[in-house]
Amino acid sequence: MRLAASPEELRRELAGLPRPTVLVPTMGALHEGHLALVRRARQSAGPAGTVAVSIFVNPIQFDRPGDLAAYPKPLARDLEQCEAAGVDLVFAPEAAAMYFPDRSITVSESLLSRHLCGATRPGHFDGVCTVVLKLFNLFQADAAVFGEKDVQQLAILRRMARDLDLPVEIIGHPTVREPDGLAMSSRNVRLSPEHRADAPRIRRALEGARSLLQFGERSAAPFLAAARKHLEDSPFLRIDYLELVDAETLQPVSPIKRPAVLAAAVFYGDVRLIDHVTLPP
Amino acid sequence: MRLAASPEELRRELAGLPRPTVLVPTMGALHEGHLALVRRARQSAGPAGTVAVSIFVNPIQFDRPGDLAAYPKPLARDLEQCEAAGVDLVFAPEAAAMYFPDRSITVSESLLSRHLCGATRPGHFDGVCTVVLKLFNLFQADAAVFGEKDVQQLAILRRMARDLDLPVEIIGHPTVREPDGLAMSSRNVRLSPEHRADAPRIRRALEGARSLLQFGERSAAPFLAAARKHLEDSPFLRIDYLELVDAETLQPVSPIKRPAVLAAAVFYGDVRLIDHVTLPP
Repeated sequence: MRLAASPEELRRELAGLPRPTVLVPTMGALHEGHLALVRRARQSAGPAGTVAVSIFVNPIQFDRPGDLAAYPKPLARDLEQCEAAGVDLVFAPEAAAMYFPDRSITVSESLLSRHLCGATRPGHFDGVCTVVLKLFNLFQADAAVFGEKDVQQLAILRRMARDLDLPVEIIGHPTVREPDGLAMSSRNVRLSPEHRADAPRIRRALEGARSLLQFGERSAAPFLAAARKHLEDSPFLRIDYLELVDAETLQPVSPIKRPAVLAAAVFYGDVRLIDHVTLPP
Repeated sequence: MRLAASPEELRRELAGLPRPTVLVPTMGALHEGHLALVRRARQSAGPAGTVAVSIFVNPIQFDRPGDLAAYPKPLARDLEQCEAAGVDLVFAPEAAAMYFPDRSITVSESLLSRHLCGATRPGHFDGVCTVVLKLFNLFQADAAVFGEKDVQQLAILRRMARDLDLPVEIIGHPTVREPDGLAMSSRNVRLSPEHRADAPRIRRALEGARSLLQFGERSAAPFLAAARKHLEDSPFLRIDYLELVDAETLQPVSPIKRPAVLAAAVFYGDVRLIDHVTLPP
């Protein structure tokens, strides 16, 4: 496995590696969810292609300095996991190698980012779009794999690829969960034992609300009320948002006539977790 | 010479053409200035490479609807000129082939675009950055040639290439002028005969101000005053802006210690013309 710490090193390493190049952009603190993305990347690249992983805790997508500072950075362990998973190339730069002090170019999205995380994390998706576009360019990636857990991120990156005519295939991969249903996230390790035990409630609240479909329910309010009730029964969590949005436009919708997404973000202490379920119409 | 009117056609044509691909992005209404860019592109591509020209009057970079509507569009003549100049491929799409009705991704620049045209044409450089990035991606360009006449545009595109790690070499080419000194522009044909006769004044005003350097003048005010005086002597023109900025940051500067740019935009009726001179420190 090759390792690059700067754009220059990355270009040098890439020159000796065969196309197609399939990238898995991560912020490190790798877990089974990331490894599933790596396997999906290998499937897309083929045995002879290149599977690349970027590990970069991107400062410009963090809206809360504390969240950035507390983000886990177990680099040695991440590299071991990549090696064991058959990754060909890891790019793990410092922030100074990615951003000039006088950087002034931003890629922004103005529609799909209005709700959900976009509403409660100002500038977050500008930071995501900008860094992902940089990574696509640095790797000259042919395809990239992202987790469906970050449903809004995936929709926005697909939109970026479409609107900027990027020559990159965007591949979504289903959310990987813990045995108790909690969506895997690098932030889970920061939960206290009590909070960790309570957190599968997020998934149950969303799944429970979804079951209203079988009674023919189509207006948004009952879904939101059911999910909110179950979330608010927790003595620990605080709801950041709970929204029911169109699956394509990510705008609030009622009644449900096309595929929709019921999505939540909650705080356990200062740890923020997200999850969602899709609602077929 | 090959011709493509849609991204799909462009991809098909490019598949049969050799790298490197050197792009000259234009809005059509080609003149000798554009043809100089094409020759520069050939020099960069080599005899075996591909010289491509895009002809697209990009609606999202126009801040005044009247300016967009009046922009000349002599496509047949443009194609003849490209053919005669040895261009290999022309891409001339309609706006609907370039932008989805629900497009929502914008590339923006926040520092170099604060003054000059960026201050008087809101949204202009967002539109320029966005379309140029799309063209780079569509052509998979290895290099692109831009006129130095649009000094702020060139600086912003270089910044975009740097900040987004674009694998595209940005090549600037000196301003081409009419025999009387007027910078060539597709908008010149829209000048009335009286205005056309007066317009070389812009260049003279800027050159005249620059001559203050030989008296050891370094503070901005005398340069601006000298140029303004000569411009305001015209019975026709209206000054849009007249600024003296650092050549790299494009922020107003005084005294001049590093290379600087004295730049003007003026209106003759509704025709807006720009020009600049560089001031060595």
